[in-house]
Amino acid sequence: MIDWLILDREIKIWIQEAGERIRHSLQNKLQISTKSNPNDLVTNVDKDTEQFFIEKIRSTYPGHRILGEEGGGDEITDVRGVIWVIDPIDGTMNFVHMHRNFTISIGVFGDGVGQLGYIYDVIHDELYSAVKGKGALFNDQPIPRLEEVSIEKAIVGMNPIWLTNNRRIDPEYLRRLVKDIRGTRSFGSAALEMGYVACGWLDAYIAMHLSPWDFAAGWVIVEELGGKATKLNGEPLSLLEKSSLFVAKPGLHQVILDNYLQNYVEKN
Amino acid sequence: MIDWLILDREIKIWIQEAGERIRHSLQNKLQISTKSNPNDLVTNVDKDTEQFFIEKIRSTYPGHRILGEEGGGDEITDVRGVIWVIDPIDGTMNFVHMHRNFTISIGVFGDGVGQLGYIYDVIHDELYSAVKGKGALFNDQPIPRLEEVSIEKAIVGMNPIWLTNNRRIDPEYLRRLVKDIRGTRSFGSAALEMGYVACGWLDAYIAMHLSPWDFAAGWVIVEELGGKATKLNGEPLSLLEKSSLFVAKPGLHQVILDNYLQNYVEKN
Repeated sequence: MIDWLILDREIKIWIQEAGERIRHSLQNKLQISTKSNPNDLVTNVDKDTEQFFIEKIRSTYPGHRILGEEGGGDEITDVRGVIWVIDPIDGTMNFVHMHRNFTISIGVFGDGVGQLGYIYDVIHDELYSAVKGKGALFNDQPIPRLEEVSIEKAIVGMNPIWLTNNRRIDPEYLRRLVKDIRGTRSFGSAALEMGYVACGWLDAYIAMHLSPWDFAAGWVIVEELGGKATKLNGEPLSLLEKSSLFVAKPGLHQVILDNYLQNYVEKN
Repeated sequence: MIDWLILDREIKIWIQEAGERIRHSLQNKLQISTKSNPNDLVTNVDKDTEQFFIEKIRSTYPGHRILGEEGGGDEITDVRGVIWVIDPIDGTMNFVHMHRNFTISIGVFGDGVGQLGYIYDVIHDELYSAVKGKGALFNDQPIPRLEEVSIEKAIVGMNPIWLTNNRRIDPEYLRRLVKDIRGTRSFGSAALEMGYVACGWLDAYIAMHLSPWDFAAGWVIVEELGGKATKLNGEPLSLLEKSSLFVAKPGLHQVILDNYLQNYVEKN
């Protein structure tokens, strides 16, 4: 039996240490390169931070497996055992351009079930966390369970690019939604926006093409608070594949699925 | 002759005091009502904070005039003398929903010329400020002058609603822009987003219908750093009217005007 509360204490210490290193690294010039396209940025700090966590995990929990954005972890094709899902810097574009509004995102899963989630806003020193069955915290303060909200009072996070013509979704679905809700926001970090949903600051968050490390932590935290995290068609998320993401408060999740996303078909 | 540096020191003390009062007020339940439409929110704290500044100004500078969002100031139909332009809480929707990502915004103008600008992110205790001719600060740190950036590396702030059909702009203009730039963000406070432009974190910010109190402070700060703040058609802003707003780094401002906004016609 794994005592998740012991891991929880340990991870929080590691995250603080990693955050301190990242803040320090911003005093030096970043080494920036691109990955899949000119706007898919990566820096030396993303890679160093992933390596920091991998070394901690390998030495402390040699039986655990690691799925990391920068590829330093394991090839994961099944969800058996304990899997750490790590995005060392979620919101790398913000990291590069703003030196803020990026997060460390870590989810820990046991046999496919989310047990621990951490989203750390490094510059503001704000940690969103959860232990399955034990509640969620914003820093040291318990986060209240999520309550229902009507569509006309909802604030939804999404990247505005999905309101333009694109190959993933008919933009009219989301344009209709944007016109009916109270407000739309885009902070540029999926993990941070899931933290905002957890705290009730956003009522929902929609993204069209994320990797498991983008949503693993937020998935655990939001579900611990009674929210829902699925693909845009309502199907369950998976640690083994990229997909769309639709996170929302209870009630609102079904309302948006039924009234705005019912014709959406997931594309690979 | 007005010594703007003396006002600068005084205003910063007032802003700190107002910020402390606002943070304290969040411990109590907000009294929320609506203004022009169901999403145009105002709270007791907006009104109390405006009144706080009005009392300070009236007692210290009885000859100055005040233009404030909540209407406690003067009717302003010309720009003679010293005018304080105050938004006690810019981003009231964020204030109500998130208890964060809102600002106090204050611009001070002498005979229509912006002399002082202050944008205070109350929760993060971050102040963007400028004294005309003396440079701009983020907290106590001088902000470097703004540099040019190419369109394909630009991050632009705008409300996603303007990418849907609306009565102010053909959404195709902004959809084209969103597709060509590196990223789009929406933080939900015009003043905060102008602070982000000042610091170079956003490269531009676009809004379709703002009041002078929304942009007065940011106008002063961004121009002090070499950026440009105009209407979307490139015409000068005015303290006496609502208008669109287009703030950008030098160079980028003209590129976006010439290539994306050349057919835009300002509507009242």
